[in-house]
Amino acid sequence: MAPQYAPSLRSCLAPMLLVLQLGFILIYAFYIEIESNVKVYGITFSNLYPEFQDVNVMVILGFGYMCTFLVRYGFSGTGFNLLVAVIATQWAIILNGIENWYYRGKIRIDLKSLVVAEMCAASALISIGVVLGKTNPVHLILIALLEVSGFVLNEWLLQTLLKVPPLNSIMLLHIFAAFFGLMLTRILYRKGSEQPFEKEKVDNKTGLFSILGTLFLCVFWPSFNSVLVDNRTPGRRLGAVLSTYLALAVSAVTAAAVSSLSSPEGKLNPIHLQSCMLAGGVSIGVSMPAVHQPWEAMTIGFTAAVVSTIGFRYLKSHMLLAFECHDTCAVLSTHGLPGLLGWLAHLLLQIKDCDDHTTAIRFAVFHICSLLITISLSLCMGIITGLLLKWNFWRPPQDKKCFDDQAFWKFPHLAVQK
Amino acid sequence: MAPQYAPSLRSCLAPMLLVLQLGFILIYAFYIEIESNVKVYGITFSNLYPEFQDVNVMVILGFGYMCTFLVRYGFSGTGFNLLVAVIATQWAIILNGIENWYYRGKIRIDLKSLVVAEMCAASALISIGVVLGKTNPVHLILIALLEVSGFVLNEWLLQTLLKVPPLNSIMLLHIFAAFFGLMLTRILYRKGSEQPFEKEKVDNKTGLFSILGTLFLCVFWPSFNSVLVDNRTPGRRLGAVLSTYLALAVSAVTAAAVSSLSSPEGKLNPIHLQSCMLAGGVSIGVSMPAVHQPWEAMTIGFTAAVVSTIGFRYLKSHMLLAFECHDTCAVLSTHGLPGLLGWLAHLLLQIKDCDDHTTAIRFAVFHICSLLITISLSLCMGIITGLLLKWNFWRPPQDKKCFDDQAFWKFPHLAVQK
Amino acid sequence: MAPQYAPSLRSCLAPMLLVLQLGFILIYAFYIEIESNVKVYGITFSNLYPEFQDVNVMVILGFGYMCTFLVRYGFSGTGFNLLVAVIATQWAIILNGIENWYYRGKIRIDLKSLVVAEMCAASALISIGVVLGKTNPVHLILIALLEVSGFVLNEWLLQTLLKVPPLNSIMLLHIFAAFFGLMLTRILYRKGSEQPFEKEKVDNKTGLFSILGTLFLCVFWPSFNSVLVDNRTPGRRLGAVLSTYLALAVSAVTAAAVSSLSSPEGKLNPIHLQSCMLAGGVSIGVSMPAVHQPWEAMTIGFTAAVVSTIGFRYLKSHMLLAFECHDTCAVLSTHGLPGLLGWLAHLLLQIKDCDDHTTAIRFAVFHICSLLITISLSLCMGIITGLLLKWNFWRPPQDKKCFDDQAFWKFPHLAVQK
Repeated sequence: MAPQYAPSLRSCLAPMLLVLQLGFILIYAFYIEIESNVKVYGITFSNLYPEFQDVNVMVILGFGYMCTFLVRYGFSGTGFNLLVAVIATQWAIILNGIENWYYRGKIRIDLKSLVVAEMCAASALISIGVVLGKTNPVHLILIALLEVSGFVLNEWLLQTLLKVPPLNSIMLLHIFAAFFGLMLTRILYRKGSEQPFEKEKVDNKTGLFSILGTLFLCVFWPSFNSVLVDNRTPGRRLGAVLSTYLALAVSAVTAAAVSSLSSPEGKLNPIHLQSCMLAGGVSIGVSMPAVHQPWEAMTIGFTAAVVSTIGFRYLKSHMLLAFECHDTCAVLSTHGLPGLLGWLAHLLLQIKDCDDHTTAIRFAVFHICSLLITISLSLCMGIITGLLLKWNFWRPPQDKKCFDDQAFWKFPHLAVQK
Repeated sequence: MAPQYAPSLRSCLAPMLLVLQLGFILIYAFYIEIESNVKVYGITFSNLYPEFQDVNVMVILGFGYMCTFLVRYGFSGTGFNLLVAVIATQWAIILNGIENWYYRGKIRIDLKSLVVAEMCAASALISIGVVLGKTNPVHLILIALLEVSGFVLNEWLLQTLLKVPPLNSIMLLHIFAAFFGLMLTRILYRKGSEQPFEKEKVDNKTGLFSILGTLFLCVFWPSFNSVLVDNRTPGRRLGAVLSTYLALAVSAVTAAAVSSLSSPEGKLNPIHLQSCMLAGGVSIGVSMPAVHQPWEAMTIGFTAAVVSTIGFRYLKSHMLLAFECHDTCAVLSTHGLPGLLGWLAHLLLQIKDCDDHTTAIRFAVFHICSLLITISLSLCMGIITGLLLKWNFWRPPQDKKCFDDQAFWKFPHLAVQK
Repeated sequence: MAPQYAPSLRSCLAPMLLVLQLGFILIYAFYIEIESNVKVYGITFSNLYPEFQDVNVMVILGFGYMCTFLVRYGFSGTGFNLLVAVIATQWAIILNGIENWYYRGKIRIDLKSLVVAEMCAASALISIGVVLGKTNPVHLILIALLEVSGFVLNEWLLQTLLKVPPLNSIMLLHIFAAFFGLMLTRILYRKGSEQPFEKEKVDNKTGLFSILGTLFLCVFWPSFNSVLVDNRTPGRRLGAVLSTYLALAVSAVTAAAVSSLSSPEGKLNPIHLQSCMLAGGVSIGVSMPAVHQPWEAMTIGFTAAVVSTIGFRYLKSHMLLAFECHDTCAVLSTHGLPGLLGWLAHLLLQIKDCDDHTTAIRFAVFHICSLLITISLSLCMGIITGLLLKWNFWRPPQDKKCFDDQAFWKFPHLAVQK
């Protein structure tokens, strides 16, 4: 029988964090050094630094504040996001360097390694959005470690087996993270959660914090999509920035239109606007290598917002009732569906550009294989992670403590809530 | 007789957004392409990108959060700001490219076009501040489209008739937007609004959100003023950044001093500080081409803050009672008066620098003409827009629904407001 | 006997601000001009500008919002922070230029001068954190002027007497500011404040604002530490960025672990996480010139977070009871102790790198002297400032008005607090 009070995390969270952190320091001490040859691939430090900072703001501030919408879960939203982000980044730097370590005995890191690691961390943060509020921080850290491992493995498989270019395989993070998270929440399903949880609510101040996080994501998304674009071909980076900007603009407008259409009173739902305006950025990220014209980006943004808003409106409750997937941040409609759409757009645009049938078919086969590998691996990793987390050793929060900061945080001088 | 419940926007807002957005996509498909020659005017992508992002943050986060101060209007403040910003930017890209289209058949866009378009969008956002809370989103979008059209027309007139340099004519956006907005609110005047509206209130949490927006504007204003400065003359951009920083610093201090002086108890009014510290940025933006010394910038910042704070304190209610202009965000004292002051400072400094009388008089005549054209055009466009918006077809909100999110937004799981 | 109502600041604050500001304008008019030779020390405008903006965001938004945690003191936290920051920056530009003025008769400013001045302002903002809520704005401005003067004097002494490189002496700002603030609060001690002040409380919305400020600091701290690093040695700047990022990441994880360990229920304290995650940034800043490997940075971050969290948990109340130091923002454990730790790490790492004993001992003597000078000067300036502020002429707030916005701010249309 579950205990009547929330289980203490003291004997579980603190040792885990300390062991992990000391382990990382040891690994870094033996195997990691700073790249001394600063100018690699024509990208100088000053060229990359502002975009690195934009990605950093997205990962720490954007994802962190987007998760504050739950009225009693703001500290957990931002605090656990930060913990997961920094742990996942340190872990991803190690994993991404394994190949280098194998050949040279040392992993050399520069600003680009950090950017790539932050993107892996972003994929972990997306997965965590699915189970937010129904897990404790120990769970979240385990999820992050396994998700990042799976994602790096997936990248390596795609690059080794199918010669997918690095940028394309990284951008599949949205698809990987969404399916990983959905499979995980399916396995961690709590009986009785067809009804909304007691504290799964929003109020208008936490809503504003959440919009702040979303706007950070939205404003800096052009950097997220362009930072890894090869600088040697002039204009590719400019194209990535303009395409992302336009796609986001179009999807914001479209999300508002569809949200208003799908409400009987014609009112807008701020959550629609929030999660569906990002759909444009997601799908353009996945399809970017094949987007060359502004109107292509805009059409992708438009379709993504329509798919995402309709998905949010009708699919979220369906997923819960039919598949027992409780998806706190609607990751399926924000990242999953637009990611698939972007994958499809990439396929269609690339086929359109091919001169002969053979190349087109070859490309299609490879492209479909890369999707299948990504989805199967993400589902497998989701199952493994889910089974591991079901173990009672990790002390899952009770149903009535879900979505509640009080289970994990303590303020000595809290003003009485009025 | 007006209906007792708020009119539904479903049949009006959604079709309008969809038609507009699909129209934009069509126009972009036929006429707009991405500039492939990346290095134009000596400005490379990497040089411009950080400042573009700063302007983007100002337009989306700065203006958006500045408008959250109304206690029940936070979602509208940020949400409608976002919608208007992205629609106005897409529209401005088209309008700004018409001349190119006329000569070459195609509009080529690069990062600079996007920055200029965002500045046009900023002028629409300033105008919208005047009527915030008393209009519905359909109105706001119409205002944005017409204001941007008027502003681009004004720019074209100034550049064609008077050979005003592009940067100078863009910086008149503060004056254009303020007078456009004031004329608009004059025409849309609602009887009985001499008394403050029922919900036109601030609380201390929304006040903090609003300060956040203002500080975003304040921090990134140096980028706003310097991003379009020609990089070929070395030092001009540095001068613009330093002047703007100093002017903002001086006007923050001065606004606090005047605010404390004008209160019988010596207390500060946070709204004074907020709107009047921006006055320095506005007036330095307008007068920048003639400012060469730090002390000139500081004196302009000082005067702007004094004028703006006194304008806010005494002119706002006077405008309402005497001219029936209800100005929600005090745009007259934040953008209008400091803009005029900056125009005057530009005139005086330029005359001081002239060697002979003839040049000075020529310059003064041209400078006065450019102001007259700007103000007349803005007032005309304001009248046209106002008359269009008076049409009941657009379903204006009722008086008691003004400044209320509930007329436009719906949350499914809202926590009970305590 | 103290009056029953709060003393009006009208006759004190406004004249002070006006006199100061007009004085600054006069000094700038006669002695300060903008550097026309843009490329100095191999740093171009475009290289430096993005990092300048990051520092600007930290000073205005980061420190400002970090101080909003007090439930009734949010406007003062952000508003006074802004006033102090801009006044201190203007003052620091003048003081830093005195040597130039002495030799050339003019002070030439460029972006780097502004960055250095903002760092001096940051030291004033740290000191102010100690006395936040127990002082009025007039006090805060006096503190800022004296603290900046003392800090610039300290820098000059270190550079002249001990040939300490400029970057190293600037980074001692954390130590200087913390000891200055502690001595000041010791002298301004109010009897009876062993008990927490009536309004010294946090609520969960102001907590989120405060976390926002902290995350701004955390995200942009790599820029703070790297902006002044010499660009001529390639890779130094990259090293500074990576070290700072890793140290911050490690200290966030460690702070969470120690916070959970030190609570009987294993819960996290958000204030621990907030103030102690910054410890990594502080100590790496002070020790940076000697940090060359990622693991060194991570170890320093780990130790700093342990020291800082334990300091916060046990030392804060001890300082209050034993030494009568009431430290509002826990500056001792956020900046003081990690600063000293960084100083020690610098010493040890540098000695480890030395080839022979003589150099090592020489370095150690110089390094210890520089710390002693810094601490003695900061304590002296703290005593002088404290004695000046005890004068009743400045109208200190009464005990029951401490930590209360209402003593200084007035809103005309405040919604009734529910």
